[in-house]
Amino acid sequence: MTNPLASATVEIEMPFHDIDVMGIAWHGHYAKYLEIARCAMLDTIGYNVPQMRASGYAWPVIEMNIRYAAPLHFQQKIQVQAVLVEVENRMKINYRIFDLETGKRLTKAHTIQVAVSMESGEMQFASPRALLDKLSA
Amino acid sequence: MTNPLASATVEIEMPFHDIDVMGIAWHGHYAKYLEIARCAMLDTIGYNVPQMRASGYAWPVIEMNIRYAAPLHFQQKIQVQAVLVEVENRMKINYRIFDLETGKRLTKAHTIQVAVSMESGEMQFASPRALLDKLSA
Amino acid sequence: MTNPLASATVEIEMPFHDIDVMGIAWHGHYAKYLEIARCAMLDTIGYNVPQMRASGYAWPVIEMNIRYAAPLHFQQKIQVQAVLVEVENRMKINYRIFDLETGKRLTKAHTIQVAVSMESGEMQFASPRALLDKLSA
Amino acid sequence: MTNPLASATVEIEMPFHDIDVMGIAWHGHYAKYLEIARCAMLDTIGYNVPQMRASGYAWPVIEMNIRYAAPLHFQQKIQVQAVLVEVENRMKINYRIFDLETGKRLTKAHTIQVAVSMESGEMQFASPRALLDKLSA
Repeated sequence: MTNPLASATVEIEMPFHDIDVMGIAWHGHYAKYLEIARCAMLDTIGYNVPQMRASGYAWPVIEMNIRYAAPLHFQQKIQVQAVLVEVENRMKINYRIFDLETGKRLTKAHTIQVAVSMESGEMQFASPRALLDKLSA
Repeated sequence: MTNPLASATVEIEMPFHDIDVMGIAWHGHYAKYLEIARCAMLDTIGYNVPQMRASGYAWPVIEMNIRYAAPLHFQQKIQVQAVLVEVENRMKINYRIFDLETGKRLTKAHTIQVAVSMESGEMQFASPRALLDKLSA
Repeated sequence: MTNPLASATVEIEMPFHDIDVMGIAWHGHYAKYLEIARCAMLDTIGYNVPQMRASGYAWPVIEMNIRYAAPLHFQQKIQVQAVLVEVENRMKINYRIFDLETGKRLTKAHTIQVAVSMESGEMQFASPRALLDKLSA
Repeated sequence: MTNPLASATVEIEMPFHDIDVMGIAWHGHYAKYLEIARCAMLDTIGYNVPQMRASGYAWPVIEMNIRYAAPLHFQQKIQVQAVLVEVENRMKINYRIFDLETGKRLTKAHTIQVAVSMESGEMQFASPRALLDKLSA
């Protein structure tokens, strides 16, 4: 099993503006839910967007995969869990979305990010020390 | 090679409100670009959202995968191509995003949708005739 | 002074995807913050969107006005207050956004909604009893 | 009558992801439609966001007012017209949204922006020469 390097869980309530004409959260909005959990996780290691920029690196998402098992409805409360599972050459984060009330798992997802030097614009093939130092701290 | 059952290409210009603090289109917005191309493709076979509903089926997205090879910038013009490649048991659509000026491929993606009966709420393990008839028409 | 008929206050933290290239929340996103507070207020009187629909009326927004006094930044925590101030012929709601930490007022806004019969599609020149009964309950 | 200093009109087709559970474009999305027209208008005078930043000024929106006369539906095509009507101390832009097919006016709006020095962070009580020079050019 993958040993989590860092993790965080956030609670979100489905707002009206995320609900589509079929009465469910439009699938594209899930990228926001993942990001809120990801930022909370990055805060636990002190390497969220401001610290990334201060370290000289942007970390663009190069892959996002979402598997939707069950829809979300207006005012439904969910838990979104973000787990950091890879850091050596890239940052891979796994996500699970659960119904807050029943605990049922509704969605699985992952994102992959790589470090890009803000000075040279070059993609880094190994994660910079700035991230690794945060994790060993 | 997969034989395309239907396809469409749309042009989109990156609006200011899709650009994040790093100066690139936020990765979550791509779901919109894919959808605009998907709807254009579905219009070519006469089975877009209104016709889906009229046929008694919702077609929720059950998987979305996006691989971002290069970022998008403010006012950049892109072509988004949607190609229907599977319909028997589910609808699988492949996408490519190209820079309009250079033709360079910037993003690859796919989505998978399944038919759900709006009456019973049950997922269909084979695509309903409503879709297949449109394709043979 | 206008006597509030109902009110609610919610807390929101600025997510990364709402921040634009200037480093502040893009002005268009505020409609979401107002709506989250409005729905919380409507819940206090038991007349949120599901109850509106059950009563046979849609309540489209016919006017939105927002005055931005100070910008919002990534991870800034705000309080959004929604106050129902008019119901006889239309629903007018006033909003204030405050910085959670300092209490400084950052934004003023209001929205106006009118009842539209979902059956006839006709705009109602007096608010339907469904709303007024909720307020007197 | 106010003499337009600059203007532009854009065409937009309502995408699926802007449509809410009532089957109409959610009112908050209109800020995007206005912005697309505003950016097109600013391009005609060569003072869009990149030129604003190059001139040392941000131009945050300090007021947005939208009056919705009729709803927008999925795949409806609209024309959005942006007209620059004030520039001396602030930039005021009026908007009209029309149905493309019938020419019926659906929405009226305006936004007000002020120049803020990116160096000092101070709001400018008179519009900087950078803007005025563009208009006299």
